[in-house]
Amino acid sequence: MTDQMQRIALAGRPTGAPQPEHFSLETADIPTPGPGEILVRNHYMSLDPYMRGRMDDGKSYAAPVPIGGTMEGGGVGEVIASNSDHFKAGDFAFGPFGWATHAAADAKMCRKVDPAHGPITASLGVLGMPGFTGWYGLMELGKPKAGETLVVAAATGPVGSMVGQVAKALGLKTVGIAGGAEKCKMAVETFGFDACIDHRAYDNAKDLRAAIKDACGGGIDIYFENVGGKVLEAVMPLMKPFGRIPVCGMISWYNAGGLGAGADAKLTAPAIWRTILVNFLSVNGFIISNHWGDFPKFAAEIGPKVASGDIKVVEDIAVGLENAPAAFMGLLEGKNVGKQVVKLI
Amino acid sequence: MTDQMQRIALAGRPTGAPQPEHFSLETADIPTPGPGEILVRNHYMSLDPYMRGRMDDGKSYAAPVPIGGTMEGGGVGEVIASNSDHFKAGDFAFGPFGWATHAAADAKMCRKVDPAHGPITASLGVLGMPGFTGWYGLMELGKPKAGETLVVAAATGPVGSMVGQVAKALGLKTVGIAGGAEKCKMAVETFGFDACIDHRAYDNAKDLRAAIKDACGGGIDIYFENVGGKVLEAVMPLMKPFGRIPVCGMISWYNAGGLGAGADAKLTAPAIWRTILVNFLSVNGFIISNHWGDFPKFAAEIGPKVASGDIKVVEDIAVGLENAPAAFMGLLEGKNVGKQVVKLI
Repeated sequence: MTDQMQRIALAGRPTGAPQPEHFSLETADIPTPGPGEILVRNHYMSLDPYMRGRMDDGKSYAAPVPIGGTMEGGGVGEVIASNSDHFKAGDFAFGPFGWATHAAADAKMCRKVDPAHGPITASLGVLGMPGFTGWYGLMELGKPKAGETLVVAAATGPVGSMVGQVAKALGLKTVGIAGGAEKCKMAVETFGFDACIDHRAYDNAKDLRAAIKDACGGGIDIYFENVGGKVLEAVMPLMKPFGRIPVCGMISWYNAGGLGAGADAKLTAPAIWRTILVNFLSVNGFIISNHWGDFPKFAAEIGPKVASGDIKVVEDIAVGLENAPAAFMGLLEGKNVGKQVVKLI
Repeated sequence: MTDQMQRIALAGRPTGAPQPEHFSLETADIPTPGPGEILVRNHYMSLDPYMRGRMDDGKSYAAPVPIGGTMEGGGVGEVIASNSDHFKAGDFAFGPFGWATHAAADAKMCRKVDPAHGPITASLGVLGMPGFTGWYGLMELGKPKAGETLVVAAATGPVGSMVGQVAKALGLKTVGIAGGAEKCKMAVETFGFDACIDHRAYDNAKDLRAAIKDACGGGIDIYFENVGGKVLEAVMPLMKPFGRIPVCGMISWYNAGGLGAGADAKLTAPAIWRTILVNFLSVNGFIISNHWGDFPKFAAEIGPKVASGDIKVVEDIAVGLENAPAAFMGLLEGKNVGKQVVKLI
């Protein structure tokens, strides 16, 4: 009998927030790695907001997960068999292993991870896709200058905390936005934000705007966009001339049922467009998978700062593959504190 | 008795489309030029969509015209008195002369125009602010590459026709959008667009989108935005990955009464934001007055092409200051064909 593994499949496409019935925990045979592939025992899997998009059946930058297919995502684990010259059994690897205890993956899509260099979970967060997203978007599209003011939401998440820490080190004033007093305290005390606004304390964009304006002491030069919704509506009128908005996500809208007309009635398309025009804004959408060529530069710059403690890391670790759906649903509601991973072993 | 002049003052602030009562034709004394100023007999004044914004009382990139103040705008005319070393009586000058037969203006805000080099109205259109807007936005923000596809609306206007002609010469496929069969014919036959779509032939964005898609033979790399509204809604889903959208105006929304929630219900903010993200778009608002430093480069490149006829010019000339309000109201509805000016002498 072939050895067995577990995986979580997409059982249905949600309208709005995913529910438990949209996921199914299944048992399958452990695959045999094909030519050029490695077989990995996944130790940690990543949970990231973009995965919500993969559950939808529509045009996006990546194909949707098919019904019955394993939920996609990055993971880090131990190589247990290898048909690649670049990996041997016992190595640790980061790769697209999905929501699964085991996976066979093309070795060219994987990266070696050395546990001697620090916690292997860093490859999923601060030194992985989310951290790289924050760094790239800030440096390449945000074009930060000392003395400017930056705002980023999800400030204690792996993207926002990277953006805030790198910007602060460059001499910017950093104002975070987060959900709840605990996260706001962490944003300031752990991640060094000059201030952090609790968006849950304001039930409308206007009051939230006033609080952000007060914390900024004026306008905003860089709004690093990863949430959309109420925060975007609050921030747009505060943008300074020649402001920059890198756009890497819009988590508040991911559950909005197709981003239709009712998703956010107060923030209109003409209002966004007008703000872009009259303030000469530069708004740039990006998805980090188009920019892996810059990853070595990122790793060389940020890796040592993580090792030295200059860049702080906070992780939220769920335990057990069967708990991944609940952790993911919580992530979309902002229940996690820090980078969400799932421990599988 | 001092010699008299005529001017058009802002008599009230419109909600929606301007009406005749928002303008008032007045007689005033011809001013005496102060130190460093020139006195000009205005021969032609320019009418441009941005002037609608100056009629509103709200935050924009420029201060509103005060009630009772002369409507602002560029003009070209003959210097009749000069307190500047740079101008002498008899020179022709372009400057901020407003909707008026005569004006005193700071010589530093004016530019000499040589009638021997071609029609002086060129300084208001093809070799003035609108032409420069099209050229700058295309070259600096559109980043055109041969083989790409460009879409621009108001294709026979002074901005759109410059964008189309420069892009075509660079090897792009150019698809114009204009209102009515006459303008579409002109876009193709005079300005060399590969195709031009009559937006009036489609009463909804979906059908307009199908026509644009068909004309493009695929997606759009550069959408040069000067209209907003239905065209924007039609175009957004057609944008290709890494597409660019320079935003210099949104004439279809200028009369929309403050660009409020009801201005365009079908095109939502989340839909715009999502398109920017999933297609990695670069959206850049700009106003050409921030970029006059590049004007000499523009004039050196485009001036000879206008003189040689490689860049075509179409003007729509209203006659008499008293007809300026009607011509302006028509401009906002797309009634003009080519660059709208008003002949004052």
